[in-house]
Amino acid sequence: MANIQGIAASSGIAIAKAYLLETPDLSFEKVTTATPQVEIERLDQALDISKQELEKIKAHTKENIGDEHAEIFSAHLLVLSDPELINPMKDKINSENVNAEAALDEVATMFIDMFKNMDNAYMRERAADIYDVTKRVKAHLLGVTFPDPALIDEEVIVIANDLTPSDTAQLNRDYVKGFATDIGGRTSHSAIMARSLEIPAVVGTKEVTSTIQNDDLVIVDGNEGIVLINPTEEVIEKYRKKQEEFAKQKQEWAKLKNEPTLSADGEQVELAANIGTPDDVIGVLDNGGEGVGLYRTEFLYMGKSQLPTEEEQFTAYKSVLEQMDGKPVVVRTLDIGGDKELNYLDLPNELNPFLGFRAIRFCLENEQVFRPQLRALLRASVYGNLKIMFPMIATLEEFRQAKAILMDEKEALLQEGKEVSDHIEIGIMVEIPSTAVIAKQFAKEVDFFSIGTNDLIQYTMAADRMNEQVSYLYQPYHPAILNLINNVIEAAHSEDKWVGMCGEMAGDAIAIPILLGLGLDEFSMSATSILPARTQIRELDKGKLASYKDQLLSMSTAEEVVQFIKEKTE
Amino acid sequence: MANIQGIAASSGIAIAKAYLLETPDLSFEKVTTATPQVEIERLDQALDISKQELEKIKAHTKENIGDEHAEIFSAHLLVLSDPELINPMKDKINSENVNAEAALDEVATMFIDMFKNMDNAYMRERAADIYDVTKRVKAHLLGVTFPDPALIDEEVIVIANDLTPSDTAQLNRDYVKGFATDIGGRTSHSAIMARSLEIPAVVGTKEVTSTIQNDDLVIVDGNEGIVLINPTEEVIEKYRKKQEEFAKQKQEWAKLKNEPTLSADGEQVELAANIGTPDDVIGVLDNGGEGVGLYRTEFLYMGKSQLPTEEEQFTAYKSVLEQMDGKPVVVRTLDIGGDKELNYLDLPNELNPFLGFRAIRFCLENEQVFRPQLRALLRASVYGNLKIMFPMIATLEEFRQAKAILMDEKEALLQEGKEVSDHIEIGIMVEIPSTAVIAKQFAKEVDFFSIGTNDLIQYTMAADRMNEQVSYLYQPYHPAILNLINNVIEAAHSEDKWVGMCGEMAGDAIAIPILLGLGLDEFSMSATSILPARTQIRELDKGKLASYKDQLLSMSTAEEVVQFIKEKTE
Repeated sequence: MANIQGIAASSGIAIAKAYLLETPDLSFEKVTTATPQVEIERLDQALDISKQELEKIKAHTKENIGDEHAEIFSAHLLVLSDPELINPMKDKINSENVNAEAALDEVATMFIDMFKNMDNAYMRERAADIYDVTKRVKAHLLGVTFPDPALIDEEVIVIANDLTPSDTAQLNRDYVKGFATDIGGRTSHSAIMARSLEIPAVVGTKEVTSTIQNDDLVIVDGNEGIVLINPTEEVIEKYRKKQEEFAKQKQEWAKLKNEPTLSADGEQVELAANIGTPDDVIGVLDNGGEGVGLYRTEFLYMGKSQLPTEEEQFTAYKSVLEQMDGKPVVVRTLDIGGDKELNYLDLPNELNPFLGFRAIRFCLENEQVFRPQLRALLRASVYGNLKIMFPMIATLEEFRQAKAILMDEKEALLQEGKEVSDHIEIGIMVEIPSTAVIAKQFAKEVDFFSIGTNDLIQYTMAADRMNEQVSYLYQPYHPAILNLINNVIEAAHSEDKWVGMCGEMAGDAIAIPILLGLGLDEFSMSATSILPARTQIRELDKGKLASYKDQLLSMSTAEEVVQFIKEKTE
Repeated sequence: MANIQGIAASSGIAIAKAYLLETPDLSFEKVTTATPQVEIERLDQALDISKQELEKIKAHTKENIGDEHAEIFSAHLLVLSDPELINPMKDKINSENVNAEAALDEVATMFIDMFKNMDNAYMRERAADIYDVTKRVKAHLLGVTFPDPALIDEEVIVIANDLTPSDTAQLNRDYVKGFATDIGGRTSHSAIMARSLEIPAVVGTKEVTSTIQNDDLVIVDGNEGIVLINPTEEVIEKYRKKQEEFAKQKQEWAKLKNEPTLSADGEQVELAANIGTPDDVIGVLDNGGEGVGLYRTEFLYMGKSQLPTEEEQFTAYKSVLEQMDGKPVVVRTLDIGGDKELNYLDLPNELNPFLGFRAIRFCLENEQVFRPQLRALLRASVYGNLKIMFPMIATLEEFRQAKAILMDEKEALLQEGKEVSDHIEIGIMVEIPSTAVIAKQFAKEVDFFSIGTNDLIQYTMAADRMNEQVSYLYQPYHPAILNLINNVIEAAHSEDKWVGMCGEMAGDAIAIPILLGLGLDEFSMSATSILPARTQIRELDKGKLASYKDQLLSMSTAEEVVQFIKEKTE
């Protein structure tokens, strides 16, 4: 039995067998064969099994995720049937008397290199397809197991170095009871995904993949951030009890589902949720969300071969607004670039993508992308309580320009006889330090602010939150961050505007009392964090917390802040 | 005749023939030869000429720059004499009957690929050496001219896409009268280098290399940021007059060399210079510098195969301190990482190097690199007025940790019986927003601040200043930047500490009145900017400028700020 400490990324406790989502060792020796015909048969067999697997995965994906995602596997299947790829492998076996592994590898590498070096996004994607399927065929040739998350058919805990969006898209959610990963933090994709799936997860353990074997019994404690490997019966029993207690606590939380979010001294705030697709709204309502504080529209643009149409977008926005039934819905316009790429847009490769051409910067230069989104939003506005939010605003000129384009499209729609709501609030993300610093100037022109702490922290500390060597500088409680947040709230309130927060910090148990004291109006978080947050806020005295403000803002380090808040709220 | 508009990067006017520092087209056709012996002779000839050129460049570099840099060319010469590289080329010509170009290219590519893929910095450098020399040999085979900046022997204006540090190291400074480049801004390496060499330069023209031919007559107007190609006699005459006027103005400036820097209302500030090597001190004193506001110590670490010893560093620091003869010298400890790499340190490849593991972050984790520098500085401290400055400080913990290591080394030196000054001030760069925001907390612990605007602006605006697509966001006059600068100055003065600025902004004619009004104590800039700045400050009324503070800080855009300052100082 061994324990590994990581970062608690999604609450709850899971107990199940380990399923390693790791590419196995695919190294091989190139050897001369006296029986090329045998090698060709081996190759054919490996190709056949691979095709069968891909067909299954494709069917599963189609059923569980959608047609569009399933198309990836159609492309993979085409690769495996392409004579232009397969015949040269067989020729090589025949003419050079080499084993199937070597022939497969050398021919695939040649095609991959050729496609990869073409200055064409489509061809580069073909290189990636060949790379992916070749790995699978090679695994079958070598007789090693290739992990297939889509084909999991018993309860497991997925163990991985990291989970990419495409990994999680393929997971069979009925059977995956928890995650544990080597890398990542509370704001990494895997952590956000685990919270949205409501399964326990521990990330940033550094060593789960090297320590855990397939079929080890594993406990993931997403409350404490611990992974236990092959625990004793006694320990398992203890954790089963904890599991029950957690389930009970969830029931307690659920009682607050339809209650307002009031502090102990009767001050009301709004608890909203961050969502990515219309399907997420069910979870928001189930968890007592009072609004959508951040609708990330990027998912509409991702995993596709072209831009979504105005109509597709309209349908999605309308669906969210209708489901939320008059509750506020803050939609963020396209935040692409940085770490989020779109193949069909051919965004530039940048030395520092986080400081690059992304979000509103991209949209203002590419109105043919921006305007259809704004039109779709404006048309959907009559179906609910829509608020539009521009991301990555660094200057007032950018906001004015974006708003002017929006007004222009509104005018055009009215001219076309379309209906558009007259009550759409227009606000901005505060995620760039410059905007937090001169929030006072912005507050005169915007209808609301939503503080995006994930980016605000990384820019304010000049530390890439994805870079482990500087992740110690990702400090939400750093007094500079608190000062900037306070500056935004004071600026907004002096102009009678409201301030939300849609970064991970808004759902954090240590941050909540600080933010409540600073006067934050809306907290937007993972849906599953809403009820615990409501429970916490009902026990907090907002007036008392507000009285600590000057002390907190003049502290020197994040550590001092945390210690102070812990003392005051115990 | 054509005019190209760019960015004025270094003042003055130059008129001379164009010298294109561009790699020529080296494409070739692979053909079969009936006379392999002829091809082998062609290869031998090209190798011989290349060797002769490299010998000349090596000698020139040794004389003008130093032994260490000349070693690069010894390595290149070794490559050209290496039978393990050359013989396979000749074998290929003989056995495959191909032309010399094809044999050279294919063999070199094979070695480059092999070395490049080795996980070893030394081998990767060998790959770069082979790549460099092969280009030269190929140019001779193809009969095209390969540019050799070291061998320039007549007055020229260098036209390049960009100038790298190694390009400028090779330039024969006696003959290079000016630069014009396609890319870069006022803070790019080429711009800084031009100002330090005191030659006119225009950067960021986008098109000089595609528009200008070798031997075109070119005028570079570094005052207005214009490049004129093949101007008429009349225009040349006009620019000769401007040249004379500029020379006269320089004489006027020179009269202020030994004068104090006083504003019109009698307030004194300090004008200091940014330097990179002890050799730069002459220029500082010639231009009336009252101190060194930033000694970038990276040059001691660059272009080498290993870390500089404590002794080498001691010698350099002592030399600067002695030459400055009691005037203040602010030495910044190693600021490596980001865009500055060292081969022998094997720094990590990062997705966002500007938000990565650099400067103090690196030094605190690598005390074996940090401590020798601190020892060298402490030992040198008795030879002048030393101030030590830590770069990229984001938290008070980092400052405290760095200072503790410094104090530890001081104690150790005193134990060893070495002398260390008791009057060393210890300060920090303010280049990360968090530090600017809580400057008040820092001011209690540091002896001084120096604001590094180049980085502070890029982090505050979340825009990579090297990325042209977002360079419009690099806004020194943005009200958020002015608010942060003001916050630092007020915090420092409330604790009786001084504030300098060592970014490019400190020498900028529009920024100077703003900074003077905000109360900046020390302005550190390119040495050649000092006398124009002194001239400007003598005409400015600091009291009046200070009275505009509240107005400036509450402005909404950089444009408003610039317009206001222009009106008020006209």
